[in-house]
Amino acid sequence: MTLPAPTFADIEAAAARLAGHAVVTPLLSSPEIDAAVGGRVLVKAECLQRTGSFKFRGAFNTIAQLPEKERRQGVLAWSSGNHAQAVAAAARHFGIPAVIIMPADAPAVKIANTRALGGEVILYDRRTESREAIGGKLAAERGLAVVRPYDDSRIIAGQGTAGLEAARQAEALGVCVDQAVVPASGGGLVAGVALGVHGVFPGCAVWAAEPQGFDDLRRSIEAGSPVPHESSGSTLCDALLATQPGDIPFAVHRDHLMGGVAMDDGAVLSAMRTAFDRLKIVLEPGGAIALAAILSGAVPGHGRVSLVIASGGNVDPATYRSALAATPFA
Amino acid sequence: MTLPAPTFADIEAAAARLAGHAVVTPLLSSPEIDAAVGGRVLVKAECLQRTGSFKFRGAFNTIAQLPEKERRQGVLAWSSGNHAQAVAAAARHFGIPAVIIMPADAPAVKIANTRALGGEVILYDRRTESREAIGGKLAAERGLAVVRPYDDSRIIAGQGTAGLEAARQAEALGVCVDQAVVPASGGGLVAGVALGVHGVFPGCAVWAAEPQGFDDLRRSIEAGSPVPHESSGSTLCDALLATQPGDIPFAVHRDHLMGGVAMDDGAVLSAMRTAFDRLKIVLEPGGAIALAAILSGAVPGHGRVSLVIASGGNVDPATYRSALAATPFA
Repeated sequence: MTLPAPTFADIEAAAARLAGHAVVTPLLSSPEIDAAVGGRVLVKAECLQRTGSFKFRGAFNTIAQLPEKERRQGVLAWSSGNHAQAVAAAARHFGIPAVIIMPADAPAVKIANTRALGGEVILYDRRTESREAIGGKLAAERGLAVVRPYDDSRIIAGQGTAGLEAARQAEALGVCVDQAVVPASGGGLVAGVALGVHGVFPGCAVWAAEPQGFDDLRRSIEAGSPVPHESSGSTLCDALLATQPGDIPFAVHRDHLMGGVAMDDGAVLSAMRTAFDRLKIVLEPGGAIALAAILSGAVPGHGRVSLVIASGGNVDPATYRSALAATPFA
Repeated sequence: MTLPAPTFADIEAAAARLAGHAVVTPLLSSPEIDAAVGGRVLVKAECLQRTGSFKFRGAFNTIAQLPEKERRQGVLAWSSGNHAQAVAAAARHFGIPAVIIMPADAPAVKIANTRALGGEVILYDRRTESREAIGGKLAAERGLAVVRPYDDSRIIAGQGTAGLEAARQAEALGVCVDQAVVPASGGGLVAGVALGVHGVFPGCAVWAAEPQGFDDLRRSIEAGSPVPHESSGSTLCDALLATQPGDIPFAVHRDHLMGGVAMDDGAVLSAMRTAFDRLKIVLEPGGAIALAAILSGAVPGHGRVSLVIASGGNVDPATYRSALAATPFA
């Protein structure tokens, strides 16, 4: 099902739908981070969201809008992990079955959590199989509604509530947000956050942060249409592996984004370590990439108020040990 | 200066004083923790407070009430680290000097942070020297106001705002808190939290959680008067080393506490790991001890709503690595 891109009103409606179900996550700050950047940095701690990432917002907003008869059949999703847990948790809330297609090399913690939330997990090989093909076939056979990870207006509107909420929290602090930096893979979060923030601060510059070699959104914005990245490399950011922006998110990106920046694993680990030292939140690599962009200066924060979306915290202890060994930025 | 024990009205006044200066920390929860305990567990994430622990509340509330002329001279505090950072940060807010007496074996991160916040740090040997004696002498020489760590009504009222805030957050969720578990050393936090929570939920059972071998508050409650612990042992909980409850806190404990429980390092590390996995917050050992008490069953949480104060997150990476290696409770 292709839907038109959401509007600010759709994000406000999603926020009303999520009230009492999603966590109102805090906007954190640190004098040491502000001093290192030379500006004010407001960190939206979506790692504290239900299921440990922002993905719960979009999954809940989508499943809540399925017609009752369709919803009762259950839902299906494909995901490297955070969308998986989010769909499983939202499905459990509505008392319906959830089938989740996950790559066999997804972090063990994400697979285990998805199962613990009642999701039926089906593993596939990310290098040789198509999750869309496996998922589409299964959904048709079992009559399940597909909850897409990003290429859906309802998902984008749900993720956008993180941006709207952060903008209103900044307003309550008496602060105007000059720029926002948002992790990007398929681009649903950064599209939604851009819409949500622009409803409150129309002049805010919105940037996407992507892993080095996986910066398809940056290339797409420069090309003016969705183009895939060229990498066959690897990144620690297991949550940010989509090969190109979704069509619906990109329709928003084109109008609302300044551009994208690409961060390497070293900067991401240093940002995770900085969040450990200064913010006392646990971030996964993909969840720390926007913070890395500000702290490294890839998006200059000097003299500005920057909103950073810290999108998730589902990380294995082994990866976290690497972050503890990294040199913090602040 | 000895002041009478604070009242609920003092805690409300402290909350008004702190508004806009302290972080309103979130009340976190996790379905996995609730399932493991068999009850509802609400975690007050004071690790997200300014300077990484609840101590900012009491320090700010005390310094704010010093007469202007006295305050201008500056303040002095002794602390293993969290009170040190809090007093330095609050002093910086008021633009006054802060001298901090710290044990030479305090975590490096706490000493470094206190200095970074503008505090003049003076180190002493915890085994052979008296911090009260060193501090008293210096305060007299330089005309500094002593900001005590716990034996002061203004400090207790400030710390109590964490309990009042948590109780009001629980109320907003439509939940009645049956019991509260609070880390204890000198006992300022647990005294204040008991007063704050009892103003909203008069029937709430309040428990102190202490390190094994350092359970002077449990012994004191049983004895009916402050008695020192007998340990010459060690604990990972560097924030919880006071040898006996303060006189003013104990006047509150006697009327407001059910008792105390003692937790070993293994349980504390497992609770830190559980907070990493399920709550995505960074806790230091002393900050995780109340969570350990509930998760281990030392304070039974089955069928109850339990408020847990997660009091701080200032932990060295080396200690955190031990927590990552521990087996989580949930």
